Amino acid sequence: MATSKAAVLTAFNAPLESRDLPLPDKLEPGAALVRTEMAGICGTDVHLWKGQLPITLPVIMGHETVGRIAQLGDGLERDWTGQPLKLGDRVTWNSAISCGQCFYCAEKKQPTRCPQRRAYGIGYRCDQPPHLLGGYAEFHYLRPRTTIFKLPDDLPTESVIGAGCGLLTAIHGIERTGIAWHDNVVVQGAGPVGIAALACAKSAGVAQVIVIGGPKHRLEMAKRFGADHVINIDDVREPKARLEAVRQLTGGYGADVVLECVGIPNAVVEGMELCRDGGKYLVLGHYCDAGPVMWNPHVITRKQLQVFGSWSSEPRHLKQALEFLRANRQAFPFHEMVSHRFTLDRANEALAMTANWQAAKSVFVPA
Amino acid sequence: MATSKAAVLTAFNAPLESRDLPLPDKLEPGAALVRTEMAGICGTDVHLWKGQLPITLPVIMGHETVGRIAQLGDGLERDWTGQPLKLGDRVTWNSAISCGQCFYCAEKKQPTRCPQRRAYGIGYRCDQPPHLLGGYAEFHYLRPRTTIFKLPDDLPTESVIGAGCGLLTAIHGIERTGIAWHDNVVVQGAGPVGIAALACAKSAGVAQVIVIGGPKHRLEMAKRFGADHVINIDDVREPKARLEAVRQLTGGYGADVVLECVGIPNAVVEGMELCRDGGKYLVLGHYCDAGPVMWNPHVITRKQLQVFGSWSSEPRHLKQALEFLRANRQAFPFHEMVSHRFTLDRANEALAMTANWQAAKSVFVPA
Amino acid sequence: MATSKAAVLTAFNAPLESRDLPLPDKLEPGAALVRTEMAGICGTDVHLWKGQLPITLPVIMGHETVGRIAQLGDGLERDWTGQPLKLGDRVTWNSAISCGQCFYCAEKKQPTRCPQRRAYGIGYRCDQPPHLLGGYAEFHYLRPRTTIFKLPDDLPTESVIGAGCGLLTAIHGIERTGIAWHDNVVVQGAGPVGIAALACAKSAGVAQVIVIGGPKHRLEMAKRFGADHVINIDDVREPKARLEAVRQLTGGYGADVVLECVGIPNAVVEGMELCRDGGKYLVLGHYCDAGPVMWNPHVITRKQLQVFGSWSSEPRHLKQALEFLRANRQAFPFHEMVSHRFTLDRANEALAMTANWQAAKSVFVPA
Amino acid sequence: MATSKAAVLTAFNAPLESRDLPLPDKLEPGAALVRTEMAGICGTDVHLWKGQLPITLPVIMGHETVGRIAQLGDGLERDWTGQPLKLGDRVTWNSAISCGQCFYCAEKKQPTRCPQRRAYGIGYRCDQPPHLLGGYAEFHYLRPRTTIFKLPDDLPTESVIGAGCGLLTAIHGIERTGIAWHDNVVVQGAGPVGIAALACAKSAGVAQVIVIGGPKHRLEMAKRFGADHVINIDDVREPKARLEAVRQLTGGYGADVVLECVGIPNAVVEGMELCRDGGKYLVLGHYCDAGPVMWNPHVITRKQLQVFGSWSSEPRHLKQALEFLRANRQAFPFHEMVSHRFTLDRANEALAMTANWQAAKSVFVPA
Repeated sequence: MATSKAAVLTAFNAPLESRDLPLPDKLEPGAALVRTEMAGICGTDVHLWKGQLPITLPVIMGHETVGRIAQLGDGLERDWTGQPLKLGDRVTWNSAISCGQCFYCAEKKQPTRCPQRRAYGIGYRCDQPPHLLGGYAEFHYLRPRTTIFKLPDDLPTESVIGAGCGLLTAIHGIERTGIAWHDNVVVQGAGPVGIAALACAKSAGVAQVIVIGGPKHRLEMAKRFGADHVINIDDVREPKARLEAVRQLTGGYGADVVLECVGIPNAVVEGMELCRDGGKYLVLGHYCDAGPVMWNPHVITRKQLQVFGSWSSEPRHLKQALEFLRANRQAFPFHEMVSHRFTLDRANEALAMTANWQAAKSVFVPA
Repeated sequence: MATSKAAVLTAFNAPLESRDLPLPDKLEPGAALVRTEMAGICGTDVHLWKGQLPITLPVIMGHETVGRIAQLGDGLERDWTGQPLKLGDRVTWNSAISCGQCFYCAEKKQPTRCPQRRAYGIGYRCDQPPHLLGGYAEFHYLRPRTTIFKLPDDLPTESVIGAGCGLLTAIHGIERTGIAWHDNVVVQGAGPVGIAALACAKSAGVAQVIVIGGPKHRLEMAKRFGADHVINIDDVREPKARLEAVRQLTGGYGADVVLECVGIPNAVVEGMELCRDGGKYLVLGHYCDAGPVMWNPHVITRKQLQVFGSWSSEPRHLKQALEFLRANRQAFPFHEMVSHRFTLDRANEALAMTANWQAAKSVFVPA
Repeated sequence: MATSKAAVLTAFNAPLESRDLPLPDKLEPGAALVRTEMAGICGTDVHLWKGQLPITLPVIMGHETVGRIAQLGDGLERDWTGQPLKLGDRVTWNSAISCGQCFYCAEKKQPTRCPQRRAYGIGYRCDQPPHLLGGYAEFHYLRPRTTIFKLPDDLPTESVIGAGCGLLTAIHGIERTGIAWHDNVVVQGAGPVGIAALACAKSAGVAQVIVIGGPKHRLEMAKRFGADHVINIDDVREPKARLEAVRQLTGGYGADVVLECVGIPNAVVEGMELCRDGGKYLVLGHYCDAGPVMWNPHVITRKQLQVFGSWSSEPRHLKQALEFLRANRQAFPFHEMVSHRFTLDRANEALAMTANWQAAKSVFVPA
Repeated sequence: MATSKAAVLTAFNAPLESRDLPLPDKLEPGAALVRTEMAGICGTDVHLWKGQLPITLPVIMGHETVGRIAQLGDGLERDWTGQPLKLGDRVTWNSAISCGQCFYCAEKKQPTRCPQRRAYGIGYRCDQPPHLLGGYAEFHYLRPRTTIFKLPDDLPTESVIGAGCGLLTAIHGIERTGIAWHDNVVVQGAGPVGIAALACAKSAGVAQVIVIGGPKHRLEMAKRFGADHVINIDDVREPKARLEAVRQLTGGYGADVVLECVGIPNAVVEGMELCRDGGKYLVLGHYCDAGPVMWNPHVITRKQLQVFGSWSSEPRHLKQALEFLRANRQAFPFHEMVSHRFTLDRANEALAMTANWQAAKSVFVPA
């Protein structure tokens, strides 16, 4: 029986285990088998590894993946945009599939909250067929109805993985928030989501983007991506001083839009104050539950705020992301984010590097 | 020198003092002098009296007032809607005036956040001319640019004061939130703002309104105003049980829109959970700062919420309120809210009754 | 072989023919067979009969239908809202099904423009199995993925058919347009769509609805449905005079929102002038192509208008319609619209009556 | 008595006359006198000259002007953004002032439709004091409440005049239309408004902009400003062929947003077809009435369009324009649009050059 090597999360906070898992005998109609070319390690994977999300083990992590089609199930002939698919095509895909029929999908048009939704690399056990439902493996099984995108030749794999799910998350969140042309924008956080939010905002014709974060090497990356101002939280340590700095850069009023890309509850408390009155606030970094914080809801009324949340992303956001990456490699060099490459047998080393914020972006190159 | 009797707040938490304050010799151009016919006592007045808002004393409270024009300044010939004004006309007005020129008024169109804005009955000292800038007095001075509305004969003063600033607040907040036709709506709170929010929502064609609050006599009023369901917090004491009740009434999902009209921080924590995923939450009851609360911002992301704040109201909301009151006396009997009438010399008794939630609505009838 | 009687459109402008068409041997999984209880005759059917829409004959017309479940295909266990389905249940359904996967369905969220969409009673030939895909027949076949709604016992069939597709059309169009609370609204047209638009607007808390149309008996129906003012085009014959009348009723400005429910191109030219500057205009009545008209696009710029179009409706609009009908039988007596009942063998008489505007609403009661 | 030279429109279609008009003795409080540094000649001026707008003569045309402050009225101390003003400052201003108090300004927030609004260079006679209310003159009088903007030193006068009112118009129109990130955009027209619309769209992160227009030199300018594709109407002469070309560039669907910047009614008919279903159309070029056209309103329903109009612009659009010009001189070289300079005594020559579309932009440099 043919098998695929995989790095498997079998217990929280324990080393990943190397496993050989069976390749499927036969694909379901509409499914595909893909040979992994590159799989990104996302900050969420660290949270998963630490047991901070309610998942059932064992799991092959990895929800940011590019691969080449090794096998096509019956009836799978085109990608999501209508491009024909054939063996050897380089593709990527959305990590989760919504059902399209339920209350949230069909009636309320909030498909990211579809209760049937499960994400590759997060929501599937690998001890049951078809086993290979995560990126940390030689092969990846794509279930029927997976929204697949064929990658154009002039879009490097590094761009797609360097941007990762952070870019999709940012696109969705900013779409929900509605940044207006020539808004003054603050991004809280300079990690992958923050950098992606910066890139989206800059490309949308805002007046300026101020990035608040650290450490220094990330803020340098932020400048590379066009940040008009950066505020290093290691230098400007007090929220009050950061508020003062933002006000000085915004005519004394605060930002029209503040994008939270941190994931620390205190950032939300600080961030709402960074908005001008009548401004907008996006809580984008709280995919994981990082616990409660002391917060005064009076700020919402007093400043007449609008606050938005955004969960995951939809297929069209991936389509937009790929177009965006292709058109803007000069201005927004996401491919340069891929800083460290690992084979699957060095999985624990790779994960540790992401956990310690040492790498811009670590990836697996299985072959 | 002619004088006007007034009940004056001279020290926080102390009895109001009766004063005789001078009437103006001559009106500024565009100003008016009005003889108070009825002045409402708002819950905010209790907060002011307790020193919970940063105001400078002495102050004549009262920001919900109907009066008759006693004197018109030069050039004041029409009300805000273009109706001619003459002596004896019964009028009401917005409690605050925005400048129309500043960053918030002219550029961002958030005039309720105009920094020059001061409210009658809250933001003016009465030891300086023109003294009479609050409702708890025989006469009220209307500064130039006050947005005055002549009342039609078939709209009783009781309707206007019974609805009070709560209705304006609700109209503005709901406008910002955007309730959709056939939404499922929860109103947290059955005080004046909650009842007004209920009325606005019901009149907007929602599927149902569930009111959560107490005590019982207020919930009976809510039923009178068309509440489809009421949940008495004295009976259903646990937030979890209330969440369960709301879910049962909304197909298991939670409400499309939840309107917070309570002013207690914990209500906000509870209320966000009452929303369905992708739902909307309005923080409307937090005009006063009631302090912080433990809150988990993850809820915003996880449920993909939209949260709105709303501060005070604009002149067009008063216009809408008056039209609404006139057209819907049957369905929404705001005039019946006026439950207790006081002369000015019983000011402390009146205030105490509002503080103790004994009255639906207490008012002053100075003459 | 079991058969169903049907009235079939075999040639444009010719009498419908009575046919006996085969009932299916076996249902596809997810399909259903329904015994028709009542089928509405829509104005669109007259256009179809006249050959004004590009359809392929022969066709069983009828896209507004209520029936009882006679047979359930494998796997069809619940209606669109999750209610269990069983034999004998009284149901209705959307006349068209979108694919859920295409550019318009999945990427642009405009499912009514899905190219795979075909409507019962319009887009299916009846000389091919499963034949029975229109309302003018004893039985109706519901294809898999048809969005079925079980009717509650307290919602009469007459309400559903009396409202017909006009109500769905109006709900969708008004949703797209966004009527605001206390807007001044004009409805052009007092046919089924106009009456439905009036009902929706009234229920949404507008300041007033002015209906322009005729003949007299329709305007009386409009008053019954709450029209604040009606303008009879037989009495006020000049567009200029109607403009004057609308201005007088709207403070001299024109309406905030004008809803076109006529289907005559000249109405669009007139209607845009009826809007106030910065107002909204909905072109709702032009499902059929009624040809061009002389029109000056300067009006869009000069009046700074927003103009909206709306095509057909989505499943959630039918859900809302059924809730609305159930909750508002008193205020909006759609059941009274059903004025004439016919058996299938009197199909031509029935169609003629609708064509001549003699009936409020004619229906078939096959049994 | 001190005088200012001016080129005056005294009769339609006749040569402008040179006049010496009196400078004001004394400024009103809040007014200013400015020495004209550069005045743009807008296409609208040609329409005015031809008598195609309802104005009263004699008029000093010119509504795109930069000057230096020669005199400041009492109380005029700051520009619209709060910068201090002093003699010699280089400034520009909005050509029209809204009242801030009327139905359109205060209630409906559509200040560009304020009935008291009159535009410099269009709506003021020059045979009455203060005479100098247009740009084609040595001096320009700025009435009280004119929204003045001090120009930063690094923003050349040529940028401001090169962009002219076209940029303000485009910013307002696009704001109303709401272009989304990664939309496919078509601009109809490559004149000043079209180029400005292109620049705004490109800066807003759209997927692509296709410009349809001519002649060739304008399309080359469009490429300079970042047009992804240009379609020359002299080469592709049939609307059907242009529709085909746009569809090929947009995956077969048509554009998400089409911006009409032409002013010819037929362009509107063509443009609506260029939209994808559910797309948006902006009628921006029809400031002047160019007469009616045969048009079929069915297109609005069938394609489920949204159509927007936009009239003139507000002060905040000028603020945004100045920031935009300053930040994007490289990408969008509006200063290069200024192609021909004239002194006031060559006014007729200058106007003829604009009328004949020979110049990108002609300007007056009075001194």
